[in-house]
Amino acid sequence: MNLDSADRKFGWMEKRQQMKETLQLFIDSLKDELYSLSQDIWSQPELAGNETHAHDRLVRFFSQRDQNWTVQSHYQLPTAFRITVLGTPAEEAIGGKINLIQAGAFTDVDLVFMAHPAQQDASFLPTVTIAEVSVKYHGKASHASAYPWEGLNALDAAVLAYNNLSLLRQQLKPEWRLHGIIKHGGVKPNIIPAYSELEFYLRTPLLKDLCDLKARAEACFRAAAVATGCQVEIIYPTPTYYNILPNATLANLYESNGKALGIEFPEQPASFSGSTDFGNVSFVVPGIHPFFHIGTGALNHTEEYTEAAGAEKAQLYALRTAKALAMTAVDVVCCPDLLLQVREDFNRARLKLEE
Amino acid sequence: MNLDSADRKFGWMEKRQQMKETLQLFIDSLKDELYSLSQDIWSQPELAGNETHAHDRLVRFFSQRDQNWTVQSHYQLPTAFRITVLGTPAEEAIGGKINLIQAGAFTDVDLVFMAHPAQQDASFLPTVTIAEVSVKYHGKASHASAYPWEGLNALDAAVLAYNNLSLLRQQLKPEWRLHGIIKHGGVKPNIIPAYSELEFYLRTPLLKDLCDLKARAEACFRAAAVATGCQVEIIYPTPTYYNILPNATLANLYESNGKALGIEFPEQPASFSGSTDFGNVSFVVPGIHPFFHIGTGALNHTEEYTEAAGAEKAQLYALRTAKALAMTAVDVVCCPDLLLQVREDFNRARLKLEE
Amino acid sequence: MNLDSADRKFGWMEKRQQMKETLQLFIDSLKDELYSLSQDIWSQPELAGNETHAHDRLVRFFSQRDQNWTVQSHYQLPTAFRITVLGTPAEEAIGGKINLIQAGAFTDVDLVFMAHPAQQDASFLPTVTIAEVSVKYHGKASHASAYPWEGLNALDAAVLAYNNLSLLRQQLKPEWRLHGIIKHGGVKPNIIPAYSELEFYLRTPLLKDLCDLKARAEACFRAAAVATGCQVEIIYPTPTYYNILPNATLANLYESNGKALGIEFPEQPASFSGSTDFGNVSFVVPGIHPFFHIGTGALNHTEEYTEAAGAEKAQLYALRTAKALAMTAVDVVCCPDLLLQVREDFNRARLKLEE
Amino acid sequence: MNLDSADRKFGWMEKRQQMKETLQLFIDSLKDELYSLSQDIWSQPELAGNETHAHDRLVRFFSQRDQNWTVQSHYQLPTAFRITVLGTPAEEAIGGKINLIQAGAFTDVDLVFMAHPAQQDASFLPTVTIAEVSVKYHGKASHASAYPWEGLNALDAAVLAYNNLSLLRQQLKPEWRLHGIIKHGGVKPNIIPAYSELEFYLRTPLLKDLCDLKARAEACFRAAAVATGCQVEIIYPTPTYYNILPNATLANLYESNGKALGIEFPEQPASFSGSTDFGNVSFVVPGIHPFFHIGTGALNHTEEYTEAAGAEKAQLYALRTAKALAMTAVDVVCCPDLLLQVREDFNRARLKLEE
Repeated sequence: MNLDSADRKFGWMEKRQQMKETLQLFIDSLKDELYSLSQDIWSQPELAGNETHAHDRLVRFFSQRDQNWTVQSHYQLPTAFRITVLGTPAEEAIGGKINLIQAGAFTDVDLVFMAHPAQQDASFLPTVTIAEVSVKYHGKASHASAYPWEGLNALDAAVLAYNNLSLLRQQLKPEWRLHGIIKHGGVKPNIIPAYSELEFYLRTPLLKDLCDLKARAEACFRAAAVATGCQVEIIYPTPTYYNILPNATLANLYESNGKALGIEFPEQPASFSGSTDFGNVSFVVPGIHPFFHIGTGALNHTEEYTEAAGAEKAQLYALRTAKALAMTAVDVVCCPDLLLQVREDFNRARLKLEE
Repeated sequence: MNLDSADRKFGWMEKRQQMKETLQLFIDSLKDELYSLSQDIWSQPELAGNETHAHDRLVRFFSQRDQNWTVQSHYQLPTAFRITVLGTPAEEAIGGKINLIQAGAFTDVDLVFMAHPAQQDASFLPTVTIAEVSVKYHGKASHASAYPWEGLNALDAAVLAYNNLSLLRQQLKPEWRLHGIIKHGGVKPNIIPAYSELEFYLRTPLLKDLCDLKARAEACFRAAAVATGCQVEIIYPTPTYYNILPNATLANLYESNGKALGIEFPEQPASFSGSTDFGNVSFVVPGIHPFFHIGTGALNHTEEYTEAAGAEKAQLYALRTAKALAMTAVDVVCCPDLLLQVREDFNRARLKLEE
Repeated sequence: MNLDSADRKFGWMEKRQQMKETLQLFIDSLKDELYSLSQDIWSQPELAGNETHAHDRLVRFFSQRDQNWTVQSHYQLPTAFRITVLGTPAEEAIGGKINLIQAGAFTDVDLVFMAHPAQQDASFLPTVTIAEVSVKYHGKASHASAYPWEGLNALDAAVLAYNNLSLLRQQLKPEWRLHGIIKHGGVKPNIIPAYSELEFYLRTPLLKDLCDLKARAEACFRAAAVATGCQVEIIYPTPTYYNILPNATLANLYESNGKALGIEFPEQPASFSGSTDFGNVSFVVPGIHPFFHIGTGALNHTEEYTEAAGAEKAQLYALRTAKALAMTAVDVVCCPDLLLQVREDFNRARLKLEE
Repeated sequence: MNLDSADRKFGWMEKRQQMKETLQLFIDSLKDELYSLSQDIWSQPELAGNETHAHDRLVRFFSQRDQNWTVQSHYQLPTAFRITVLGTPAEEAIGGKINLIQAGAFTDVDLVFMAHPAQQDASFLPTVTIAEVSVKYHGKASHASAYPWEGLNALDAAVLAYNNLSLLRQQLKPEWRLHGIIKHGGVKPNIIPAYSELEFYLRTPLLKDLCDLKARAEACFRAAAVATGCQVEIIYPTPTYYNILPNATLANLYESNGKALGIEFPEQPASFSGSTDFGNVSFVVPGIHPFFHIGTGALNHTEEYTEAAGAEKAQLYALRTAKALAMTAVDVVCCPDLLLQVREDFNRARLKLEE
């Protein structure tokens, strides 16, 4: 990608720069209003899938911003600038974006932009796929002292599955993960457990490997049923989260714009083992999902990080990131060649998956 | 024991017979009152240690029976006949009789008599000892995908303990039992569990073997802590239930009296693998604890058995058993030699334990 | 069975007594010769299936005893008295009698008689069935440090099968047994094992239960293959040994005759957990297989017992047992009604199996 | 490090170049002789610790090369050029170099140079530490069907240790390895195994982590003894292999010299998970241990690689590597500053270990 020559060729360079500057000023002018919005949501945490206060507050914010905007509450928000702001709930637990994909929310979208707070600034960090699996064993209760031989021990099945999975780990690649709990391990010591339940997460860096891991884990779950004579149910209660497909063109543009705003990108960003439903979006629409520093080295999902996320200092980092994203959008919107390049990157990344 | 010669020697035979007949008539005269008492309690089930309604109802019953009786509610009931009726709650769960032993309730008692409903009539059935053990592992939580190596997995400890105990079973005598559940097996799949909990029952026919089984089970629990680097707490939340010491003299007297009332004793009673806190009483006072049929073949602790226990038919079996017990008391009370024999049996059974 | 009345009815009583006395004298007259025979075999132990010296020595003994006998070496020996002496090798390891059944050696036989040395005298002791199973796992080797994920770990399969079986034990009746070894557990620590092998014995008191145990053990073996992705071979290298079917008529006759010779039978013989291929014979021909004391309390298969088996004292016990067996044969041969009773016992025992 | 300025400062540049060229010609002149030597050893493979033919052949080669050389057979070989050629046997199995360190063979040595064939050319590849551990469980034999409760099952201990280690894997860093076999898993299925044996390898990238891994693995081994009541012996039959300490100065010199000879070094060499006793040497003397391509992509220790190692083509790669090593020696020998830098690198790497 040669940004400069593309710019000159189309004579857009100055306009782009002007638009970027206008955007920055605009974002800065909203600073107080955005912080108040952020504080409002931060101070009222809501559980995945039930973010009603956040929904209403955001809808109100956008509706009051501009009379020309049509805010489609409870679904999506198209704007006069042909930009869609999608509030996508429940990233952590049940994959709200995956539901939105299925509902067609990304059908008419060319590019997706999102940023996620982390420990560091990075235009791209590999996220891992994740499948949540719930395994239920059904045996037969019996008095554990008087007639244990009349029973089929569902807890035995759970423990054997745990053993099976533990031995499997030696035969998995080092980056793959499987980890879980015994959610239900029997009711009373004097009853052979008729029911047990495991909950496990399976993760791999690439989607194609996740299929392999799922098959091998399922074999372990089923084997425990075979050994104990129990029945097994294997359920995936939530959709699989995919890894994020990288897009080099967008990443480079974001880094250029970010550096212009003073963002420092470490040469070798620390590895990140989280998962996001943005991964699934990145498989259907080209996009970018940079991570940004918010002024703390604490790990996400710690109390310290939650604290930092609500601090006024974090606001500056968030706005800077918003500017860099907006500037990247300007680059692509203003330069059709860049959009082509972005699409080529997208297609190449998808093709690579089929190897 | 030669009952007849003993009787004749002391010339008590006729008196005893008269007393026994009087007792039977007396018990029969209370039939309706006792059934009403029984129904009252049966229809209001209460949890172990909280049997307040049953307590009050029984106290009222005895208080109203005879103005000469002193009913010591909330503790014990001595009578003019030097007979003590002890209401002993929570046989199943927390061993109320064991608390009563510790509180001195059996200090001045020569003999104890009790009967327990079952599937069959038997003057003695071996019951097994039981120790309830609660095992808690304390590890260290960590993100299971990002930093599993920072954690100490308490669920691993629980599963390894379960494995250890399962392999131990091959090295235990066939009548020994250990069985249990995983009460707490982790909170969320993406957190290395910092806490887990097992609940197990240990049972052997004889008290001295229970010590051995406890030591071996504890080694299994501790080994899992060693292997995983977790801390372990091993707690016995309730007192150990002992096996019932047999008393051949009392058993023979009970069988003679029972047969006279029409009770049929199977030659080889079916085995019974339950436990009772009467076992502990039988280690401090000579006693008898026959089992009696109540008109059903259903197993105790089934809904069918509960139903049968409340039926009027069960009343007849219960009263017949009460008579046989009372007649056995008459035998011993009237014949000092028999009391000596009962004590010899008791001492012999206790000595045998120390072998 | 009323032996006396049956005897009188047929007027055989005196003849039978005479025959029994003749037999005893005859056996006594052979005492030295039999001891020499016994010593000859005892002093030259041979492995199962290769008892050539014992075979030749026994054939020579019978051939030289009586010119009228046709000794069919290397197969069977019919006699003028319509009695067949069958030398049946390899009782312990590979079930020689089972091969003889398949070869038709018992087709024309009405009754089988055999005695086995033990710790005590008993006309019948329950023996247990046994199936020997060899389990081979085939995985895929790989460098255990560099590419463990390329391998399929056959040792994991063996360990998981061992875990599966260990947990299964809780759900088996106390008299059932399964026990074994890991015969092959990998070659070098730095190679993921491509092959492993287990050897297990399965035992139950009754043949019909053995089918159940085999099915459950096989499920455990197969489950380990499922969990690890290995291939499994389950092989029964030797035929199943059945339990001995009891025959009350023959047992009573043997006890009567034995008591007449001074044998003392304990009222409650100690339990015995061994297996014998005579069990299989007892399923096709009515028979008796008493155990006899040889003057030692040592357990079979100990060095002490081997010593005792060669001692002259053992000779007396063996001859006495031979006499009791021969006298029992006389009873049945002389009294057709007894033979009918024996057959009825046999049919009843077989029918009971199908319940 | 600035090679050029260092060269000029001391005026050694031309001399060094001349020496390097002389060395190259000299090595080329020995080509046939060296190939014959190589073929002689390659065609007669010998087991670790018994390389007598190779020893004799190499001693003869050096002795015949130059009358001024003193070849100290069966120990070490100092030369007139103050260069020591050390034949170090048994790199793979028992760590010959570690014995040589203990015997003082490296006491007077300033630098060590060695090269190892691999798939690629690399001046440095991280090798991993390795400890071999042999674990022996001593239980108590018993008849597995008749009296299993009399036994202490050593195979149970081995299986539980295997389970323990398998669960431990989740709590280890991805680059750590532990893998092994059950070398002895019982004798006969009907005997509770009195003895069992495991053989495991433990590996970590860094020596300090190996101590941690050893402690955790030992806890797993000991826990299995606790759970089963067996005795355990934990033996390290061979010395621990250390990782190779990197030396940037030597690595850069080797790469410069190698490139001058046409060696291509991949930018990101493939990872390598092997171990070598040169690691231990690198902790006592500064050194370099480059890997070199021999014309095949096959993995070491495959038949294909063995074949390739004996091919004439491999000779060229080997001689080229020998030249690059010799040239690197020339650099350091001729330039005292470089030697100082090498020593600083060495000290820094050692200090880093103590963090």
